[in-house]
Amino acid sequence: MTTGVRRRMGVEERRQQLISVALELFSHRSPDDVSIDEIAAAAGISRPLVYHYFPGKQSLYEAALRRAADELAERFVEPREGPLGARLLRVMGRFFDFVDEHGPGFSALMRGGPAVGSSTTNAMIDEVRNAAYLQILSHLGTGEPPARMQLVVRSWVSLAESTALIWLDGRRIPRAELELQLVHDFAALAAVSAAYDDEMAAIVLRILGEEPADGPFGDLLGRLAQLGGGMIPAQRVAPAS
Amino acid sequence: MTTGVRRRMGVEERRQQLISVALELFSHRSPDDVSIDEIAAAAGISRPLVYHYFPGKQSLYEAALRRAADELAERFVEPREGPLGARLLRVMGRFFDFVDEHGPGFSALMRGGPAVGSSTTNAMIDEVRNAAYLQILSHLGTGEPPARMQLVVRSWVSLAESTALIWLDGRRIPRAELELQLVHDFAALAAVSAAYDDEMAAIVLRILGEEPADGPFGDLLGRLAQLGGGMIPAQRVAPAS
Repeated sequence: MTTGVRRRMGVEERRQQLISVALELFSHRSPDDVSIDEIAAAAGISRPLVYHYFPGKQSLYEAALRRAADELAERFVEPREGPLGARLLRVMGRFFDFVDEHGPGFSALMRGGPAVGSSTTNAMIDEVRNAAYLQILSHLGTGEPPARMQLVVRSWVSLAESTALIWLDGRRIPRAELELQLVHDFAALAAVSAAYDDEMAAIVLRILGEEPADGPFGDLLGRLAQLGGGMIPAQRVAPAS
Repeated sequence: MTTGVRRRMGVEERRQQLISVALELFSHRSPDDVSIDEIAAAAGISRPLVYHYFPGKQSLYEAALRRAADELAERFVEPREGPLGARLLRVMGRFFDFVDEHGPGFSALMRGGPAVGSSTTNAMIDEVRNAAYLQILSHLGTGEPPARMQLVVRSWVSLAESTALIWLDGRRIPRAELELQLVHDFAALAAVSAAYDDEMAAIVLRILGEEPADGPFGDLLGRLAQLGGGMIPAQRVAPAS
């Protein structure tokens, strides 16, 4: 039944090996461009044997995506210790590692090409977004979070996603800069929300009050204050419309 | 051939009528839940006659989406007059009008359900995103925009999209607040980018320098300065990590 297999693997071991091989191929090229033949060749088994384990390319793709989704959700897990800015920066570092490792596959999936868009894949994407959302929320030390805080965290997860996709498209800005920028974006979105809402203001002041002056949030505030020195007087002299 | 038609329409007129009827139905329920029978009934024609104009539900759906995409792209068009903050606020008002009018269909499309995710629909979504991006960019008065400004504008378009989707899911925050917040988010994302990059700082200072103190940007700066009064001293006394 098997040809070209160097040693005999158990069923589950073989399935896991096929998933690893497929994930590697689906990560580096658009899944539409990867054939079952290539997966079979990379796994060192025959094409019919691949079909013995997975009924078709879509099911193998979904199994690979399942593993990638679990792995990505894992990278958002961060101990609840130390200042929030530094925690978010570590999370962003691991997120960009993942995006870097799975670049073309990540782009194809998030842009929803023919082989990749299905209810199953969309449900997995939403599941990872939700895991990221719940993780970040758990770091904010609010009990039941107000609707505006939920919006800030969900928007920020989506911003991280779109920033990563834009980065993959040409890599014109160094990823370390984008990781830091996303941490700042979190502070900025929270601050905008706090500017008009007392409950949000109390949360944001508490979080920022716990930040060290030389952490990513403290650094941003210093730089914005400097920039603001140029902005606010300009406001004052500009004629009202 | 036709039954139940009150008056005879020309071919193009009938096609346009079917698109209008379909867009109305696809806007108010998930497209998966809308049948050709319903579309036929709403248009006052027989089911076979619908198929005479459109080979199937997907092609009718794509024609409806084409019209909606053109309409949405149109709403981003804004005269290049007056302060930027007020322009962006008008654009956000029209964008939320659109989202409000097409709520369930917009959600279903953007979340990519079975009937709605295809290469054609994804290409239309990207086309609208790009039209929005180019429109906003054209308001910033930069020639060839630096990569960081492109990132700010693209991220902001994606933020508007995700904020609208979150709003549709329960409408727990008034839309007028979200429209204003998105304008502020634009300023916040640009300011974060400006904090680390001189070229961006020059652009942001120029744009903000042209804003009236009582416009949406001026208002935000005042409120953030007030909030910052609470934040920056806290930074100073916090121990360095």
